[in-house]
Amino acid sequence: MIVLSSATSFLLQTGIWFALICALIGLGAAFYLVRLIFAQSPGNDRMQQIAAAIEEGAKAYLNRQIISVSIIAVVIFILLAFTRDLFTAAGFCIGAVCSMLAGYIGMRVAVISNCRTAQAATSSRESALRVAFNGGAVTGLLVVALALLSVGLFFLICKAILPLDKAVGSMVGLALGASLISVFARLGGGIYTKAADVGADLVGKIESNLEEDDPRNPATIADNVGDNVGDCAGMAADVFETYAVSVIGAILVGFLTLPSTPEAIIYPFLLGGISVIGAIVGIIYVNVRKTRPGRVLVEAVLASALVSAVLYWPITTLLFPATIQAGDQTHSPQQIYLAALIGLLMTGIIVAITNYYTATEFSPVRKIAHASETGHATNIIAGLAIGQHATALPVIFIALAILSSYYCAGLYGIAIAVTSMLSMAGIIISLDAFGPITDNAGGVAVMSELPKETRMITDELDAVGNTMKAVTKGYAIASAGLAALVLFGTYVSELRAHFSQIGGHEIGPFEFSLERPQIIIGLFLGGLLPFLFSAFSLEAVGKAAGAVVKEVRRQLAAKPGILKGTDLPEYGACVDIVTRAALREMIVPALLPVVFVIVAALFGYVVLGGLLVGTIVTGLFVAISMTSGGGAWDNAKKYIEEGNFGGKGSSAHQAAVTGDTVGDPYKDTAGPAINPMIKVANIVAILIIPIVFR
Amino acid sequence: MIVLSSATSFLLQTGIWFALICALIGLGAAFYLVRLIFAQSPGNDRMQQIAAAIEEGAKAYLNRQIISVSIIAVVIFILLAFTRDLFTAAGFCIGAVCSMLAGYIGMRVAVISNCRTAQAATSSRESALRVAFNGGAVTGLLVVALALLSVGLFFLICKAILPLDKAVGSMVGLALGASLISVFARLGGGIYTKAADVGADLVGKIESNLEEDDPRNPATIADNVGDNVGDCAGMAADVFETYAVSVIGAILVGFLTLPSTPEAIIYPFLLGGISVIGAIVGIIYVNVRKTRPGRVLVEAVLASALVSAVLYWPITTLLFPATIQAGDQTHSPQQIYLAALIGLLMTGIIVAITNYYTATEFSPVRKIAHASETGHATNIIAGLAIGQHATALPVIFIALAILSSYYCAGLYGIAIAVTSMLSMAGIIISLDAFGPITDNAGGVAVMSELPKETRMITDELDAVGNTMKAVTKGYAIASAGLAALVLFGTYVSELRAHFSQIGGHEIGPFEFSLERPQIIIGLFLGGLLPFLFSAFSLEAVGKAAGAVVKEVRRQLAAKPGILKGTDLPEYGACVDIVTRAALREMIVPALLPVVFVIVAALFGYVVLGGLLVGTIVTGLFVAISMTSGGGAWDNAKKYIEEGNFGGKGSSAHQAAVTGDTVGDPYKDTAGPAINPMIKVANIVAILIIPIVFR
Repeated sequence: MIVLSSATSFLLQTGIWFALICALIGLGAAFYLVRLIFAQSPGNDRMQQIAAAIEEGAKAYLNRQIISVSIIAVVIFILLAFTRDLFTAAGFCIGAVCSMLAGYIGMRVAVISNCRTAQAATSSRESALRVAFNGGAVTGLLVVALALLSVGLFFLICKAILPLDKAVGSMVGLALGASLISVFARLGGGIYTKAADVGADLVGKIESNLEEDDPRNPATIADNVGDNVGDCAGMAADVFETYAVSVIGAILVGFLTLPSTPEAIIYPFLLGGISVIGAIVGIIYVNVRKTRPGRVLVEAVLASALVSAVLYWPITTLLFPATIQAGDQTHSPQQIYLAALIGLLMTGIIVAITNYYTATEFSPVRKIAHASETGHATNIIAGLAIGQHATALPVIFIALAILSSYYCAGLYGIAIAVTSMLSMAGIIISLDAFGPITDNAGGVAVMSELPKETRMITDELDAVGNTMKAVTKGYAIASAGLAALVLFGTYVSELRAHFSQIGGHEIGPFEFSLERPQIIIGLFLGGLLPFLFSAFSLEAVGKAAGAVVKEVRRQLAAKPGILKGTDLPEYGACVDIVTRAALREMIVPALLPVVFVIVAALFGYVVLGGLLVGTIVTGLFVAISMTSGGGAWDNAKKYIEEGNFGGKGSSAHQAAVTGDTVGDPYKDTAGPAINPMIKVANIVAILIIPIVFR
Repeated sequence: MIVLSSATSFLLQTGIWFALICALIGLGAAFYLVRLIFAQSPGNDRMQQIAAAIEEGAKAYLNRQIISVSIIAVVIFILLAFTRDLFTAAGFCIGAVCSMLAGYIGMRVAVISNCRTAQAATSSRESALRVAFNGGAVTGLLVVALALLSVGLFFLICKAILPLDKAVGSMVGLALGASLISVFARLGGGIYTKAADVGADLVGKIESNLEEDDPRNPATIADNVGDNVGDCAGMAADVFETYAVSVIGAILVGFLTLPSTPEAIIYPFLLGGISVIGAIVGIIYVNVRKTRPGRVLVEAVLASALVSAVLYWPITTLLFPATIQAGDQTHSPQQIYLAALIGLLMTGIIVAITNYYTATEFSPVRKIAHASETGHATNIIAGLAIGQHATALPVIFIALAILSSYYCAGLYGIAIAVTSMLSMAGIIISLDAFGPITDNAGGVAVMSELPKETRMITDELDAVGNTMKAVTKGYAIASAGLAALVLFGTYVSELRAHFSQIGGHEIGPFEFSLERPQIIIGLFLGGLLPFLFSAFSLEAVGKAAGAVVKEVRRQLAAKPGILKGTDLPEYGACVDIVTRAALREMIVPALLPVVFVIVAALFGYVVLGGLLVGTIVTGLFVAISMTSGGGAWDNAKKYIEEGNFGGKGSSAHQAAVTGDTVGDPYKDTAGPAINPMIKVANIVAILIIPIVFR
């Protein structure tokens, strides 16, 4: 049992309180932004009606998702309470509830902002950009604040009651709660949004020649609901999870590898706290700077990173002692600062790379657009190739980041790089949530028959939003890969601690060697997980979309007046069908990582260790190729719609629509869900150590 | 330096001579089959003309490919001669020449058989099946005989001149020669065949509404040439390589891990020799049994495996002493026999699994066909998902095979399982080469306007051929994964031997642990290789196909009489364009593994070790998902053409054509080329050990 001196205990307390105060400032800023948005006109009656219909559908879906997931959560809570302890189980609850809450907030804010963005687009591009961005920024600030508050407060409570090692251990429960819910949110939301989207496109655009968001399409409200429950709610839950888990991972690693430096435990909180300030600076930047949308957003990220980089320095040198003992090595505060800088740098690099592969200005997207001229198949081949290409640079930079941050401060260095990378989440989410808001704003504009110029503005912002969404996904998956590596390190350390505690087998350095067939088998099984997971996710979208297609065809056949505009379609029926289909289809893939880990554990902790690394390795590639490829397909279509290669209605455009449709479940369902899936596998492995290996 | 007793030396010699005699029997059987084929009627003048045109194009391409590759081969020969020794360099030459020869033979036999199969199809399905299968069987027997002869004779010569360790070491040169040429052959041939195929389909089928193989399509001869240089020549070079490399790998592992049992070195030769007999039995079976084609072929594989399994037993127990010393462990001959059985069993299992995922009778192909009803995009999504699904069972069985054969006899057990798996190559290639021969026969039938019934027979055989091709690819990649693991084991053993010899750093058990960041980085970089490699390959097909499309459009515009049938297209111009494009585009991806290995070596042998394993892990998944997915797409189209879901000309059929076109470069270019690529990486790593790590 570890007992802290009162001075150290005071230091720990102060650091966490600092983070909590920053989080409260973030909350304040978010509420200010909400008031700003509410002050905007929500548009005419028709617009408000549509926004209300979307909101109703989104709420109905999220409520049912929460009920479905709660049943599973209760089972896990009971299991944890019996096999681990009540604190871990309580942590699980907090993580799960906060992850759901993050999703809910993301959805609510988006729904409030969409009609207001559409209304703002009737006056100018700048004001539309600001409303949409501020809507996203609310989610960004709230998610980050929520993560800091939940992790910080729960840690303070545990530390007050439990000895430090138990307190740190209970945090794993919070991580599991956050991860598991976020897998469900990503999958359920992802299946919903893409089933509705693909279903609406297949019958609407291709069979009945309707434009996107045409109010005569019975699936159009479901499509817009999907943007909110998938891209907003799912994404918010996901980033909340990634952030919370990386802070918890850093706490665990700091505790396990730097036992004589308790400062290492609070440093992640300080980084998080400072970054709230950085995010606020970035948000102010977007609201005052006047230039084209893509550029403003990138500059805002840079400004935010710069603020963090400057403020990290005094905090790091003041906090840590001059020499930090780590086993038989020592680190300096400067090295720790360097690791934090590497994280910030990685954010910039990943954003730049993904932007290159998915923005209409660069050659990858244009190659796909060009390939569309020769038909559907060449568009698909080009997109698949670009997706695979897009894995190269991120992975090479991730490798460099691992190497350099490891040389800075060992595994703790990697953990700090991840934490600082993720502490940028506030500003990055603002960019991401911006996308679905403008997408919805466009939907509202078309459905309420606003003038064409308004739709052009929302379309332009939508293209920027597509790139930003892809960029955020690249960022999320890169950081998730790193965070998962930290979790794997935690798995090994925990295993070692566990066996030395129960006086069992000693975990020697040879245990996890590639020379052992168990490791190779583990790598193969782990490598399989992302492939199987995404196969199930893709099929789920296909099945759910099929249900939508049938319903839309049924409505159009039953009421021929719908297409003529004389009859109203039953939007609610489509919303209801997708809701049920998404909830049904998300269960199997979401439980896949849990099943894999438990089966591998039966073969021993070595196979399990191999599995964890195997999942990280292939998961990274599968996820990046899917999210970047999907983003590129989407914008290749947008590029053609701008009038290139024949423009809208040309055969190239038809091919590009096929690519976009294939890319949809890639980039919005299967790809991003791999991110929490990897972490669920690692966290479950850590949790079952004391239960399975005796 | 290791000196053998004269008794052991005699044993070694006898064993190898046994294998050589079996190889000669195989050659004899092949020549008998060639005479059988020549005795068939080659059809009317028109058919012979077309066959001659195809032959001319194929020869022209292979000649130019040999010239291009020879330049690279000469550079590598000189490098090897200077940095290693003349024997390794000579081995490289032998491997390279035999690999090219295998390709050439495969092509020649196919060209002789195609018009004869078409002619036989005018009389009955059985006789067409036999001509096509016997054509494939010639290639199968020749490839296996060539591998045994080249490896056996070269080993006998080296052993006569050099001490045993040097002799064994020189074999790595032969492996590199075989692998490198086979990467080029697979890539060049794969790019050629698919560029011609996709190009011909895009303008012919989609733009001008021509049937497959319509003589008015200027790219149609190039398309048929492609089947011969890709599916026949490329495949033959590839399987020659896989077989030769796995025998060499087993020799190396036997030598390194069982130093006191020289029998371990000749055992792989004995397995190879016996399997020639097994293959001949299988071939006879096909020629006498009368039932539907798919079933005959599967039964032939079973018969062949049964013969091998029975004959392995006396050989194994007679050869090995009762206890085999391996470090501080011992193995029994029974355990070795079990490892060999596991290999045979794995062949059956992989064949059955791939058959399930790619044959028209089972649900995966039908799911894709069903998804085609809702359009291009859903067809693609379904195919991608099926491809990913198809990785699960093979990988799980590979993991079980590794585990069980390792428990039988350590790394040597895995090596023996691979060798026995690959010794089935004779009969398996017969199945594979059967596919392109019937495909070409169909082409000849249409172009020479034979009656419709003939085309129906070749179409039916073609569908069986598609599945067989996919099955062979599954078999090739699964065995390649295992063979590469053996090579990785060799890499580590060689490294250990090298450092102990130069008195350097000792390779401890911790070196290749997943706990080291260098290993993780290596896994990431290695994992990247298959993704980047296949991205380049897909793009190469896209570029080359684009060139074909332009040429075909040019010809159709310049001579409007072509489509009316009053003007003859210039077939030669298309053949020429694809030839140049394929040779140009194959260079970059083929050199990628060499570059990756050398760059990783600069970061040290630990990163390099991680890279080798990373490539194997992701390579296996990428290759299986591509080859199975591609096969499933192809047969989904065939299934619709049989009259399901609307049949030919329906919108479902159009979507299925898109899927088939996407699947083409997947299953015939990128996917199968990953197989030799993985081995090139591993062999280059073994070769550069004494050069780079000092």
